[in-house]
Amino acid sequence: MPNHKRPIAAPVSAAVAKRARRIRVLLVDVDGVLTDGHVWLLSQLDGTTLELKSFHSQDGAGLTILKLAGFRTGLITGRESAAVARRAAECGMEFVYQSVAVKVPVYEEILSRAAVQDDEVAYVGDDLPDIPVMKRVGLAVAVANAMPEVKRAAHYTTARSGGDGAVREVVELLLKAQGRWEEMIGKARA
Amino acid sequence: MPNHKRPIAAPVSAAVAKRARRIRVLLVDVDGVLTDGHVWLLSQLDGTTLELKSFHSQDGAGLTILKLAGFRTGLITGRESAAVARRAAECGMEFVYQSVAVKVPVYEEILSRAAVQDDEVAYVGDDLPDIPVMKRVGLAVAVANAMPEVKRAAHYTTARSGGDGAVREVVELLLKAQGRWEEMIGKARA
Amino acid sequence: MPNHKRPIAAPVSAAVAKRARRIRVLLVDVDGVLTDGHVWLLSQLDGTTLELKSFHSQDGAGLTILKLAGFRTGLITGRESAAVARRAAECGMEFVYQSVAVKVPVYEEILSRAAVQDDEVAYVGDDLPDIPVMKRVGLAVAVANAMPEVKRAAHYTTARSGGDGAVREVVELLLKAQGRWEEMIGKARA
Amino acid sequence: MPNHKRPIAAPVSAAVAKRARRIRVLLVDVDGVLTDGHVWLLSQLDGTTLELKSFHSQDGAGLTILKLAGFRTGLITGRESAAVARRAAECGMEFVYQSVAVKVPVYEEILSRAAVQDDEVAYVGDDLPDIPVMKRVGLAVAVANAMPEVKRAAHYTTARSGGDGAVREVVELLLKAQGRWEEMIGKARA
Repeated sequence: MPNHKRPIAAPVSAAVAKRARRIRVLLVDVDGVLTDGHVWLLSQLDGTTLELKSFHSQDGAGLTILKLAGFRTGLITGRESAAVARRAAECGMEFVYQSVAVKVPVYEEILSRAAVQDDEVAYVGDDLPDIPVMKRVGLAVAVANAMPEVKRAAHYTTARSGGDGAVREVVELLLKAQGRWEEMIGKARA
Repeated sequence: MPNHKRPIAAPVSAAVAKRARRIRVLLVDVDGVLTDGHVWLLSQLDGTTLELKSFHSQDGAGLTILKLAGFRTGLITGRESAAVARRAAECGMEFVYQSVAVKVPVYEEILSRAAVQDDEVAYVGDDLPDIPVMKRVGLAVAVANAMPEVKRAAHYTTARSGGDGAVREVVELLLKAQGRWEEMIGKARA
Repeated sequence: MPNHKRPIAAPVSAAVAKRARRIRVLLVDVDGVLTDGHVWLLSQLDGTTLELKSFHSQDGAGLTILKLAGFRTGLITGRESAAVARRAAECGMEFVYQSVAVKVPVYEEILSRAAVQDDEVAYVGDDLPDIPVMKRVGLAVAVANAMPEVKRAAHYTTARSGGDGAVREVVELLLKAQGRWEEMIGKARA
Repeated sequence: MPNHKRPIAAPVSAAVAKRARRIRVLLVDVDGVLTDGHVWLLSQLDGTTLELKSFHSQDGAGLTILKLAGFRTGLITGRESAAVARRAAECGMEFVYQSVAVKVPVYEEILSRAAVQDDEVAYVGDDLPDIPVMKRVGLAVAVANAMPEVKRAAHYTTARSGGDGAVREVVELLLKAQGRWEEMIGKARA
């Protein structure tokens, strides 16, 4: 639930801004980053279960703006669900990898598909399996609710939590660092 | 989740009260205003997804009271769901526009249907696509969890967050500015 | 979501304790009292919607203990759902009235069914339709997230919010005032 | 929802660390420990209800790491649902007991199945029915949102709340006390 007293963004150092200026691809983890980390399971009468996920509308609007500005986006997650596939499509994500236990090989496949180098990629994570990718990318971001080991591996930690606008914060960081934010405001669509 | 220490309402300036006295129609955005901005998706076994939304009972009671007091109400949103249609009906909303990417044309249609002028309309928003309508209406309101650009475009920012009573706060602001609140308290129905 | 820094209970005055010692029946509102006030709607593919409600396990355990101690319990709510009927049954509630727009006539029916007087009933509410019943009962309780008019009509306001343990707080208040709490602790069942 | 200002872990005394060094089995309650204590019920059109539960991804990752490190894990809960069975399987839990009103007999069955003594077991609880088991085990843990009687029965109270990482905090406490945490970080899988 949004806390109206939370800071809307963490301060951006000159070093982080410099890293952000090179980024062309934004990749994110799902649980704890696009969501607040809760795994919701609905029990059906036949004993099967359905999974429910909670995304944030401001993240979605941000990812759509980022794509409109020419960036490419994607996600790498250990779990798998139709909800993630749909949300990725709604947000215009191009690189969608679910059921991934070890993330670096998939990350390298994305580098190849996008024809970019490490320093042109930003990655946002919250837990231990994100660290190996974070050590590779040009801009490694930990969300506010990330585990301490993840924050130590990050160039930048967001003020907002996963599922509560953390990805929107990274989108704005990238567009502002590249001098594109003001131009994009008027292009936002509901 | 309600925080029992949150302020129940932000202070209302004389300028805002003056604007509020002319209002006859209250329009609201949905995601981030009638809800807290979370987009919930339930994955079904056949690969389809169902959308879930969380409204607030105090907002609903407020909108019902406002209608009882003779106001007309409505919503304009970029997404579309049966939940929003049902909630609008439960709250007695007359102007219900879903799947709207650009809001001003629909806003102008509502002006025509309601036979009111800009200064008789209040609008509550949280994100960039709300700004063009907010620049038109007599009373532009940002919720506590709105993006900074939206707050800058608003005459008033609520103390409560979207989905956690922000719309109830606006309802009470309007009825109190027009000297109608005390009379309505006894008319509330569960 | 529980906030581990919240107070677990508000202070109880001698006047409130005196009122609590006479109580035999505990009645509660549902939305905003047994829940946090959010109204969740799930959109199905055929355009129908299903309602979801969030109760609290500590409230349920408390209501079960209260019944075990010989109290009678019930709810009066303006909405209607199978979830409320099931939760009432799980908690051993005897007086279950849904779809009630005006609460006093139902309240009087419960007085008759339970063969008690006003001063033997406690009622917990959060919004305007609860006030008429609160003016009748021996112990009127507002939850932390109640509207200001409701708090003014209450003898006691809980420290915990609706759906986050407010009803448990009232259960313990009643049992402690009547010197029954210590004896009940060992009788709790999961 | 994660609060990015919450402490990530409570201080661990020498006495608690000593107890933690002997632990081989971690048992947990479900509602209020693996979840935040909310009981979600979805009303279907035919009058039946489905139960929804919210677990935390960081707890799941922690339990998986703990099992990888050679510990055995399980749960004992008063309610029953397919969601809990699935989540237990996802986290590699071996001892899964649902619909348990009185927990000590089941606890003793687990002692026998695991061939361990009381002082080799840690148990995490939040409400009154957990207390009898907590009085038996080598390391009794209360979550941040536990009732006061439960905290008084605990050797350690977590900084994080149930459903928001409390179990992850206990997992790390155990692995750090036994000098295994650093080795496990690199073995985490998404």
